[in-house]
Amino acid sequence: MVIAQDPAPAALLQPLLHGEAPAQRRALAKAITLLESTRPDHRRQADALLNALLPHTGRAWRLGISGVPGVGKSTFIEALGLHLIGLGHRVAVLAVDPSSSVSGGSILGDKTRMEKLSTHERAFIRPSPSGGNLGGVAARTREAMLVCEAAGYDVVIVETVGVGQSETAVADMTDMFCVLQLPNAGDDLQAIKKGIMELADLIVINKADLDPDAATRAQAQITSALRLLGLHGGAHGEPGAWMPRVLQLSALQAQGIEAFWQAVQEYRALQEASGRLTQRRQRQARAWMWERIDAGLREAFAHHPAVRERLPALTAEVLAGRVVASAAARELLACFGVGWIDGPSLPTNQERPPPC
Amino acid sequence: MVIAQDPAPAALLQPLLHGEAPAQRRALAKAITLLESTRPDHRRQADALLNALLPHTGRAWRLGISGVPGVGKSTFIEALGLHLIGLGHRVAVLAVDPSSSVSGGSILGDKTRMEKLSTHERAFIRPSPSGGNLGGVAARTREAMLVCEAAGYDVVIVETVGVGQSETAVADMTDMFCVLQLPNAGDDLQAIKKGIMELADLIVINKADLDPDAATRAQAQITSALRLLGLHGGAHGEPGAWMPRVLQLSALQAQGIEAFWQAVQEYRALQEASGRLTQRRQRQARAWMWERIDAGLREAFAHHPAVRERLPALTAEVLAGRVVASAAARELLACFGVGWIDGPSLPTNQERPPPC
Repeated sequence: MVIAQDPAPAALLQPLLHGEAPAQRRALAKAITLLESTRPDHRRQADALLNALLPHTGRAWRLGISGVPGVGKSTFIEALGLHLIGLGHRVAVLAVDPSSSVSGGSILGDKTRMEKLSTHERAFIRPSPSGGNLGGVAARTREAMLVCEAAGYDVVIVETVGVGQSETAVADMTDMFCVLQLPNAGDDLQAIKKGIMELADLIVINKADLDPDAATRAQAQITSALRLLGLHGGAHGEPGAWMPRVLQLSALQAQGIEAFWQAVQEYRALQEASGRLTQRRQRQARAWMWERIDAGLREAFAHHPAVRERLPALTAEVLAGRVVASAAARELLACFGVGWIDGPSLPTNQERPPPC
Repeated sequence: MVIAQDPAPAALLQPLLHGEAPAQRRALAKAITLLESTRPDHRRQADALLNALLPHTGRAWRLGISGVPGVGKSTFIEALGLHLIGLGHRVAVLAVDPSSSVSGGSILGDKTRMEKLSTHERAFIRPSPSGGNLGGVAARTREAMLVCEAAGYDVVIVETVGVGQSETAVADMTDMFCVLQLPNAGDDLQAIKKGIMELADLIVINKADLDPDAATRAQAQITSALRLLGLHGGAHGEPGAWMPRVLQLSALQAQGIEAFWQAVQEYRALQEASGRLTQRRQRQARAWMWERIDAGLREAFAHHPAVRERLPALTAEVLAGRVVASAAARELLACFGVGWIDGPSLPTNQERPPPC
């Protein structure tokens, strides 16, 4: 059985690639709605559309932006987006928010929070796909990013509030990952979310105008922590590798936006020259394929009648310490029709990437 | 099909649970060899043995130890082990080293490196299972840990050099995870491995006698980084939660071993009183079961004839940017006989734990 053989919907393909602003924008919104649909026929059309668009993608710069609520993400993205439009770019803003409700209305990418940018004809803002798990939400956003690129948006910003693993998901679909931080508000150091330092290519201390001294202290502290974690180069950096930086700015005052974009351009030039951009995107595409395969396997497993029948009791036995977890796993795999014993006698899957 | 119905091998069960030192030790070594076997009949016997031993497990303290080569892990474990034997404990030392060759001879748990401990009748040292992937090696070590516990070892130390994801694997099978660091050797700050700070319950600066000032500086720097990362409590810690600590010691001089064990005891008391120890072990058991299920599903997928035939070409298409990764995943899942579209209309698997 081979899927994705449907023809790409011509009614969308032509205006997306060649349409004028209003028609293209309508086609863009429709295409993203199509790929968010869970109807199998829609999904086949969406796959065909994506494969047809793929040759026209990849020329945009993909920028991930993360930060806790209140850090000023929307203000920052509006200021950055308007600056980029002034430089001649077209800017798309997407979001990954697995917590958004099925009824829509994600707080992310909310047009009312980016008033000037959302009404600009050279910008396109789309809230997070709603419902489903993080993997599904992230997959839909990746696909929407490709559609935006094919429509000629040359900067795609993907934002997230960082619920659960969503920062990793956004870092894994973008060329550069930026974390917004608040300047230190008091004596206590501001805690940075677990694991986030390792993901960040750029750390931005926003609202630096409110307390310049605190912002400077935070900058020094974070720089020092990056160095301790071996993320700031020194003797530990690979030659030619980017050293994560810490910048201060004020999005509200539109101060520091130029310096931010300058740092992004430096990073981009370095990544392109070293071949790391291509490597990163290939690694992301391969990992994305396997992530979707894993998700599909898990769903099929969880919906298998024999597994569903046995799973609750066996899970309870494992939690109560009456059955060893690995023996329970083998029994459930047998229910699914897979007889499996891990060991060196089995060939390993050479196609599979190492965990990132 | 239900597996693990074989009777537990009585020839091993009795001496393991009730045998005198030399007979028990032989049975222990044989049992671990049995569960490292990849023969299906051995595996069924091993599952039966493990399930029979399970009621006798869980009373040991499971201590994970990590550190780069040269940090002095063996010296530290020997000093700690002898101290614990002096306190009346029985100590087992296991290892997770996915890089160890199939021919055996892991550098970890090497008896020649722990001369006094390895010859002590109240200690049992076993090198890492060799060959296979990390998941398989970790599963065998978890199982070996259970066998040691059933045989009455009340402190089980699991060590790793920290190749790839092996630190996460060890943290996920132990009650407490300790990282050994060297004191700062020069002007340059010592880099800590990516992601390791989030795993550590205790950070030990070994060889503090060589340069006490450097050790004290390193202690202050790491403590400060832990605070910045929100791992050191302050305003960010949960009430009653353990705050990761940084200790200095010299394993070679046997200085600081008592203070180390004191910190371990404090952690243990806190975890037991708050119910976090039970929660951690239940979370580990559930995650272990699902990790083994995932590994089995991936192996079955990778060995499926239709998948094997289509995978190389489709991977090449994805890497070349001619097929969208999510569409390729759907096509490969269809080859495997799984038709799947991710979306909110599918019920989610309630039994599955969130990623740790």
